[in-house]
Amino acid sequence: MGEGLKNRGRSRADVDERRRAVEESTGVSLPNIGSMTFDPLAAAKNIENMIGTVQVPLGFVGPLRINGDHAAGEFVVPMATTEGALLASVNRGCSVITASGGATSVVVKDAMTRAPVFRVRDSRHAVEVAGWVERNIDRLREAAQATTSHGRLLSAQPFAVGRSFYLRLSYSTGDAMGMNMATIASEAVSRLIEKETGAVLVSVSGNLCVDKKPAAINSVLGRGKIVLADVTVPRAVLEEKMHATPEAVAETCFRKCGIGSSLAASLGSNAHAANMIAALYIATGQDPAQVVEGSMVTTTCEVVDDGLYASVRLPCVEVGTVGGGTRLPCQSEALSMIGCLGEGKAPKLAEIVGAVVLAGELSTLSAQAAGQLGQAHKSLGR
Amino acid sequence: MGEGLKNRGRSRADVDERRRAVEESTGVSLPNIGSMTFDPLAAAKNIENMIGTVQVPLGFVGPLRINGDHAAGEFVVPMATTEGALLASVNRGCSVITASGGATSVVVKDAMTRAPVFRVRDSRHAVEVAGWVERNIDRLREAAQATTSHGRLLSAQPFAVGRSFYLRLSYSTGDAMGMNMATIASEAVSRLIEKETGAVLVSVSGNLCVDKKPAAINSVLGRGKIVLADVTVPRAVLEEKMHATPEAVAETCFRKCGIGSSLAASLGSNAHAANMIAALYIATGQDPAQVVEGSMVTTTCEVVDDGLYASVRLPCVEVGTVGGGTRLPCQSEALSMIGCLGEGKAPKLAEIVGAVVLAGELSTLSAQAAGQLGQAHKSLGR
Amino acid sequence: MGEGLKNRGRSRADVDERRRAVEESTGVSLPNIGSMTFDPLAAAKNIENMIGTVQVPLGFVGPLRINGDHAAGEFVVPMATTEGALLASVNRGCSVITASGGATSVVVKDAMTRAPVFRVRDSRHAVEVAGWVERNIDRLREAAQATTSHGRLLSAQPFAVGRSFYLRLSYSTGDAMGMNMATIASEAVSRLIEKETGAVLVSVSGNLCVDKKPAAINSVLGRGKIVLADVTVPRAVLEEKMHATPEAVAETCFRKCGIGSSLAASLGSNAHAANMIAALYIATGQDPAQVVEGSMVTTTCEVVDDGLYASVRLPCVEVGTVGGGTRLPCQSEALSMIGCLGEGKAPKLAEIVGAVVLAGELSTLSAQAAGQLGQAHKSLGR
Amino acid sequence: MGEGLKNRGRSRADVDERRRAVEESTGVSLPNIGSMTFDPLAAAKNIENMIGTVQVPLGFVGPLRINGDHAAGEFVVPMATTEGALLASVNRGCSVITASGGATSVVVKDAMTRAPVFRVRDSRHAVEVAGWVERNIDRLREAAQATTSHGRLLSAQPFAVGRSFYLRLSYSTGDAMGMNMATIASEAVSRLIEKETGAVLVSVSGNLCVDKKPAAINSVLGRGKIVLADVTVPRAVLEEKMHATPEAVAETCFRKCGIGSSLAASLGSNAHAANMIAALYIATGQDPAQVVEGSMVTTTCEVVDDGLYASVRLPCVEVGTVGGGTRLPCQSEALSMIGCLGEGKAPKLAEIVGAVVLAGELSTLSAQAAGQLGQAHKSLGR
Repeated sequence: MGEGLKNRGRSRADVDERRRAVEESTGVSLPNIGSMTFDPLAAAKNIENMIGTVQVPLGFVGPLRINGDHAAGEFVVPMATTEGALLASVNRGCSVITASGGATSVVVKDAMTRAPVFRVRDSRHAVEVAGWVERNIDRLREAAQATTSHGRLLSAQPFAVGRSFYLRLSYSTGDAMGMNMATIASEAVSRLIEKETGAVLVSVSGNLCVDKKPAAINSVLGRGKIVLADVTVPRAVLEEKMHATPEAVAETCFRKCGIGSSLAASLGSNAHAANMIAALYIATGQDPAQVVEGSMVTTTCEVVDDGLYASVRLPCVEVGTVGGGTRLPCQSEALSMIGCLGEGKAPKLAEIVGAVVLAGELSTLSAQAAGQLGQAHKSLGR
Repeated sequence: MGEGLKNRGRSRADVDERRRAVEESTGVSLPNIGSMTFDPLAAAKNIENMIGTVQVPLGFVGPLRINGDHAAGEFVVPMATTEGALLASVNRGCSVITASGGATSVVVKDAMTRAPVFRVRDSRHAVEVAGWVERNIDRLREAAQATTSHGRLLSAQPFAVGRSFYLRLSYSTGDAMGMNMATIASEAVSRLIEKETGAVLVSVSGNLCVDKKPAAINSVLGRGKIVLADVTVPRAVLEEKMHATPEAVAETCFRKCGIGSSLAASLGSNAHAANMIAALYIATGQDPAQVVEGSMVTTTCEVVDDGLYASVRLPCVEVGTVGGGTRLPCQSEALSMIGCLGEGKAPKLAEIVGAVVLAGELSTLSAQAAGQLGQAHKSLGR
Repeated sequence: MGEGLKNRGRSRADVDERRRAVEESTGVSLPNIGSMTFDPLAAAKNIENMIGTVQVPLGFVGPLRINGDHAAGEFVVPMATTEGALLASVNRGCSVITASGGATSVVVKDAMTRAPVFRVRDSRHAVEVAGWVERNIDRLREAAQATTSHGRLLSAQPFAVGRSFYLRLSYSTGDAMGMNMATIASEAVSRLIEKETGAVLVSVSGNLCVDKKPAAINSVLGRGKIVLADVTVPRAVLEEKMHATPEAVAETCFRKCGIGSSLAASLGSNAHAANMIAALYIATGQDPAQVVEGSMVTTTCEVVDDGLYASVRLPCVEVGTVGGGTRLPCQSEALSMIGCLGEGKAPKLAEIVGAVVLAGELSTLSAQAAGQLGQAHKSLGR
Repeated sequence: MGEGLKNRGRSRADVDERRRAVEESTGVSLPNIGSMTFDPLAAAKNIENMIGTVQVPLGFVGPLRINGDHAAGEFVVPMATTEGALLASVNRGCSVITASGGATSVVVKDAMTRAPVFRVRDSRHAVEVAGWVERNIDRLREAAQATTSHGRLLSAQPFAVGRSFYLRLSYSTGDAMGMNMATIASEAVSRLIEKETGAVLVSVSGNLCVDKKPAAINSVLGRGKIVLADVTVPRAVLEEKMHATPEAVAETCFRKCGIGSSLAASLGSNAHAANMIAALYIATGQDPAQVVEGSMVTTTCEVVDDGLYASVRLPCVEVGTVGGGTRLPCQSEALSMIGCLGEGKAPKLAEIVGAVVLAGELSTLSAQAAGQLGQAHKSLGR
């Protein structure tokens, strides 16, 4: 193993030396990875063992009209992907939504969670600890507060099983996605609990948080921001732009998302929400592993008097506009495109995520319904 | 809306013009996004409305010794992330594994699925269609084969509910991830079924596939490659490198992944498998939305005579070494680093994914267990 | 503790003595429990420590017309319950179905499962064991066959995680529900595997069976009999008998079973299938704990040209017409009422279960939809 | 169809006439069903179309020592089943628990839920309705209160998806299981919401309740009573009575309940909790269909200094000691056996359920572990 592989520096020279060591070690030349155009120090807090960057193609969809509480107006939205046809499809959905007067998108809950797990002596001890927590929520809040200026402990929900005691702690985390903040605060909370109750902290994350695992507790209670988005598409708009009737789109959604997802024992029921979330998260410096819980979206379609009503519920939009990858050069530009860089912008970003997911769902369901129609036309012509 | 936003071209000039239109439209300058260093034509099949790239920091972990059927030897593995501390953590896991003689990693099943949904008249009709499919599997296979030279229809599993009929079609797809191949073949299969049975195709994807949604059917039956990886870490190695005992790591895994994930009603039970998968997928041009099903990993730890046995089961490793984003300049370099670019390499890549996930799991569980120990030490010192 | 509590006999005198001991021990008189009207020896294989019986009210629903493969004609069906209004409701559903020409009900799959779990050395050993099983399925079949004249091993599906290896064994079990048969055969199969592969049996049931636990693997793959039942109710019949329109019933099913169950992260999506299954199982001597997996029913409603199409899919109808509680005096009479006592009747019983569940679903969904209508009428009148 | 089938009366004469009509209609004689020993009028509110009873064998387990908050002392517990060996097995578990000083069993939460679903205009309307509910919880409480003297509305948790709005209403319901009470109160609450917000009630049960369907929301939030029970069994007791070591039982629980249930995508992870719950519910006049959610039990085993620690968490113990089937002659005797008939006894009954489930789990896991030991012994002897 070449010495350079052990280089711990973060300057461009360090990155270059390390990459050369990798090239030597693997026998592979890495000119494109090495052609990063920003100073690696900008990523010093984002990665270790850096050797360059991977350039992911970035495009846009829109203009997309959104009538949100925080996101209001027409947006040109950046998305990063390597899956051909995705942006074209989402873009059609944006076009339909905008032609329909825009999508509503609202944040209805906002809390980041961390759930430490403790070893307790037995069930009675668990009950005691839960009682202590309930009586001392103010002390826990203080302990959390001492670790952060932006976060605030909202609630503490206990779960007890045998000698394991879990406490799902919910925080408001300002404009940060908030995992780190919540983790640090939860450690402080946990140490206080240890000291006062005799419970022993086993892990600051007991998997009832739930971070980056698909879990029903998150789809039920939400994590990060719960976002609702919807639109009513006039029949004429749908037929002209998507060549599908409201009836056909509603049927597709019914058989595919309604019944199909239930049979598959899915968490959430949608067409391909993860696609839009992944492309938005990569573009804007969010954590792409949180696409996992982000994907548990429920999509509904109904025929209404004047056309098609379509909606999405996103139970776990975990986004930030400060911290994490948001300050990286390309990512901050992408956030700026939608006016979402920095303080006070996280709810706006979440609403945009909701509206873009709606656009993607609408487009894909309509395309599949149109395929059906197309076939129907063919069969009529036989 | 500026005219440039409607530019459909894919040359560098087109991309530049389009980006300028976006800059004008949003009032935001995009120099970093625009500083892509490869010819946009290389991404012509990967994205529409391209305006540049997002540069995601890329680092490496390793050397990681893997004793797989396809991946054998020491690997320096590329990972792309914006989450600080992730690579450092995974790297520690790699170090532990390598010092323990390497990780076993094997592919035990390999099939990509697509599940069209049809409208049928009623339950009896569904039974008839299922019967026809069973009797005519060879004709379906021919219909599929006519659309692809690399794919092969392996099986067709029917699910019937009321007037909805689903057919989960499984394909071998060579070294491609295979979704497109499977989709095109499934359309051909579906049209034959329509013609012969009177069932009407509603959607080529009826959500029993299941693509990019967390669903139990996938964790049970697998999608893409099912990978098993494991390692036995000698006690001395674990204590020296991770400052944790086998007992403490096993307890952390038990309370967190075993019980915690069950209480949370999770699909899979692991520490943070999605992190490793996302970082590997972005680095190597895989579809990051497939991290969703990739995340349903089961991680186990047991104390054994000579130390800690740790394992992961990945039910849905959906990767390719040809097609998709694998031919993009940075991504193909990343694949080359691990000798996984091109034909004949997909199983090898899947085994590397398994081993890296194992490394990340081992590291995080050990760190949490060590925190526990650390605290124990502190409390002893009080 | 009175001596009588230890009485192990099974005669009426034994039962009486034991009950008197319980009366003495608890200070409670048990005349009704003691007034059982059959010879306790008839229950010798059904219970231990018997002190009498609990009399559960038994009624009937019907006549219910069923157009099944095995159940064909009009049936008067016994149901046992203590929940007032249940039978009246199911009876209305029967009336609607019969007036609509009857319900289709068919068995589309039939296999009882048992899944032993073994300890193996590691993942590679698991792969070896799985390979051995695949190559020696005929020997496993012989080993199973040696334990039973009615059962037959159909297939063996392996699942491996770390040092745990599971084998989901599927059996045809004739007219018995088949759990005991499957368990005994699986022990024989397991011993052979132990002997030949070095895997160590940890439990003959590794919870991938899955008996009496709600689990997605069962709803996906089925356990016992998968039954589909459906009916098309003419609009006039629905409106006259249920005071509800097809549109209102379909909407109720959509919002309640379709979306509501998905949000609740339910396995299955129905109104109250468990009610019908429990009442039928108790009446006919089935295992009431298997209502658990029986409850994972999918109910669908659609408006069709001529009225309402309603269907149910029951993935786990685990019933027998021989063995278990079927030979008890009251239970065998109940089975006789529907011509389902003894050999060759299990599929018929399963079809009746399907049709009765359909009746109950139809009735409850209609009643709720009518409530909605009723309210609408009231509000119109304001 | 004979006229008697339409007989609506509830006297013994009515029941007899009806049964004769059924006998005539089916051609089957029903002497045992007809030999019920109590006056059918006692069941007038429990069933319709009554023709007799089904006698289910009733036995007991115990004495079982319980150290609960409400159940304290030694209990002889009635169970009704037709599954041979069940009571013998549970009885062994009781013996082990009692010899270990008894089981702790405590109720940690108590609330019955009903979740009506409303049609709303769109997401914004849903948000408005949710806001109105939050601001007017006192009015909702009054509306609920007007319908019941025993129930009290505790909280109202909103869930919104598109044009569907769900409100999970939680009630304390005294000693009744409380479904009817909750349903009636929820209708009153719903009508007030309809009047004030323009939301339209679609069903008083929107399947987020969740009654008689296995659903993660219930295992996470609980329904009815959440009960924790545990025991520490000294090594000598376990080995003497169960012929198993703590290590073997813990391993069986780990591979079967821990990993097996996770792989099966189960809700809950236990050996056979449903068996005990079903047998207790049938004996004591509870609703046997609620075994479904009752079954989502988590069982844990750990080796501790002095032996084996075993625990169960029951998230949904839905029991009453007044109302429903509790006043039927045999059932009220069964309740009396454990001092649980009437007012003030529901928590006690729930604790007994917890302890008996623990006994059954302990026994089955030990038996399977002993099987393993047995085999080990045999192999040692080879």
